Amino acid sequence: MKRGTELYAVILAGGVGTRFWPLSRRTRPKQFLPITSERTMLEETVARLRPLVPEGRILTVANADQSRAIRRLAPSIPRENVLVEPRGKNTAPSLLLATASVHLRNPEGVVAVLPSDHRIAKPDVFRRKLRAAAETAALEESLVTFGIRPTFPSTGYGYIHFTRRKRKARRGEAFFSVLDFREKPDLETAGEFLNSGDYAWNSGMFVWRASVFARKLERHAPDFFPFWTRTVAALKKRSRAELAGIFEDIPALSIDYALMEKAEGTLVAEGDFGWSDVGAWSSLAGIWPRDGSRNAVKGDAVVLEAGGNICYNPKKLTALVGVRDLVVVETKDALLVCRKDRDQDVRKILGLLERSGKKKFL
Amino acid sequence: MKRGTELYAVILAGGVGTRFWPLSRRTRPKQFLPITSERTMLEETVARLRPLVPEGRILTVANADQSRAIRRLAPSIPRENVLVEPRGKNTAPSLLLATASVHLRNPEGVVAVLPSDHRIAKPDVFRRKLRAAAETAALEESLVTFGIRPTFPSTGYGYIHFTRRKRKARRGEAFFSVLDFREKPDLETAGEFLNSGDYAWNSGMFVWRASVFARKLERHAPDFFPFWTRTVAALKKRSRAELAGIFEDIPALSIDYALMEKAEGTLVAEGDFGWSDVGAWSSLAGIWPRDGSRNAVKGDAVVLEAGGNICYNPKKLTALVGVRDLVVVETKDALLVCRKDRDQDVRKILGLLERSGKKKFL
Repeated sequence: MKRGTELYAVILAGGVGTRFWPLSRRTRPKQFLPITSERTMLEETVARLRPLVPEGRILTVANADQSRAIRRLAPSIPRENVLVEPRGKNTAPSLLLATASVHLRNPEGVVAVLPSDHRIAKPDVFRRKLRAAAETAALEESLVTFGIRPTFPSTGYGYIHFTRRKRKARRGEAFFSVLDFREKPDLETAGEFLNSGDYAWNSGMFVWRASVFARKLERHAPDFFPFWTRTVAALKKRSRAELAGIFEDIPALSIDYALMEKAEGTLVAEGDFGWSDVGAWSSLAGIWPRDGSRNAVKGDAVVLEAGGNICYNPKKLTALVGVRDLVVVETKDALLVCRKDRDQDVRKILGLLERSGKKKFL
Repeated sequence: MKRGTELYAVILAGGVGTRFWPLSRRTRPKQFLPITSERTMLEETVARLRPLVPEGRILTVANADQSRAIRRLAPSIPRENVLVEPRGKNTAPSLLLATASVHLRNPEGVVAVLPSDHRIAKPDVFRRKLRAAAETAALEESLVTFGIRPTFPSTGYGYIHFTRRKRKARRGEAFFSVLDFREKPDLETAGEFLNSGDYAWNSGMFVWRASVFARKLERHAPDFFPFWTRTVAALKKRSRAELAGIFEDIPALSIDYALMEKAEGTLVAEGDFGWSDVGAWSSLAGIWPRDGSRNAVKGDAVVLEAGGNICYNPKKLTALVGVRDLVVVETKDALLVCRKDRDQDVRKILGLLERSGKKKFL
């Protein structure tokens, strides 16, 4: 890290996952579940950063309930770094709050925005690339982001359109100019994106200097900028009431929509560090150990001519007989049995529960 | 019932089911499970008999553990009627003990042998037919049995070969001469049996006068007859030690093999009273109420494009997403997920558990 470049990590921990029901609940979203390892995804995220960013410069943003969970899971993060959103209003307000907090400490501090519920299989590569991105952000007047090389025509991710001509290199890392941020495409468009080679999945990881973020907001998001100045003022006064007022007024926009799609000069590096957003139960098939019949099981199991199943039942014995490609998840009060290729529909269960008055299972 | 015909019911409750695992366990076989209704199958069996046979003449045969369960579930049956086998040795020893017990009370008493783990959808018809069979047994020197008209070429049942020429009629019931008892056939033979119309499934229900049973044993099963005389003597003396000795010595044969296949003059009536031996989980699909997608569920469930499933999970919510024709059973310590057409293989799980040292789940 270049001397003088103070790197801050901002962990976005406010997500409310629905696709890991029945394990995830309203009060216990994905980042607080030990699904990719024996530790929760939040703990994994903190542990992954620690060799690069001291705890004193790791911040989190989440609501009050979630922040209590964070303090319990990551007690080494200073209490003042656990930023509590008065209410959940998408990522732009969260990042405005977090970047303003860094700005008050050091306007030239570099902020790395990291979701709390992604998996990174190669943490060494991740840290090397994050260091290079931070140095780039420290030296350039650019927002920096990581793009993931698409492996299939996903309609579930936003895309980053970039020019393959290298703009910058640092520590062996290439940075390319972003042309465009694109929202989730239809399947045909996703296929075109995949084939062109000019598009990467938007990982939701961003790196920027606090002062650059403020200037980009002022220039490219003038409707949003007044909330920045109000937030800085409220933080200076340590006024919770003012902050609550800001979060009442501020539009609930994503940072992609509020700023990234509008800002100019943004750079993108390839996030080829074994990234997965662990979007649903079937994602775990590639993460958990599997038996010879490709069954990935957390818990004790006996298997008879069954294959390709994902099973989470740590408290009981599971017997699988003749079944293929199922997701089986058991928790204290609920059991899910789902076809693996239908795991995106698990969220629809929540709608059914809501409508049928079974809200205690949400 | 003809005056003077004293009908006794002997409920065979010693079975050790394996096909309803994980609900059935070594210590809790099928007859002690509330799977066909809110009551256990044993309770259903007793309740079905009560309008015809007073509790004082209902007997049960089972081992000591099972007999404790019987006394708890059917406290109205006199304690001396709960016959305890010193050890489990198949049905011939059980029925020798039970028939000898009746013989001591009334040698001309009629014994109706009834499994404790069959379902009878039409109990009124059952009682009418049982009454007719009892009167026939009281008047004839015949063993009487019920045959079930086959609906498919089952290889899982024994068959009764009979002549379709009516031998006797009583109370509107036809009784036919049995030609032969046949053990479980291969599929080809089962198909021939089905097509011929001369074969019925052996229901395991028998009716005989105690004295006739003894005489048939003496004539057709001379190797077995000495155990009869020893049992009658032991019961007269109320000697548990003698009874234990008999059960050490007696061969572990089924009544089919020990007597029915050898006896002459046996009669069979059609058991068309909605009989099912409830042989495995999939049998319950026809018994439990089903939703519009043919899901039979015991417990609370939400269903999303799932059909033909059988689910037992009374304590928790079950969510089924996109899955078809599964058996899903959850108990306190185990969960089974099995293809419905593989439910006969559930017993193989027990072998796997035994071999892998997970005996606590047996």
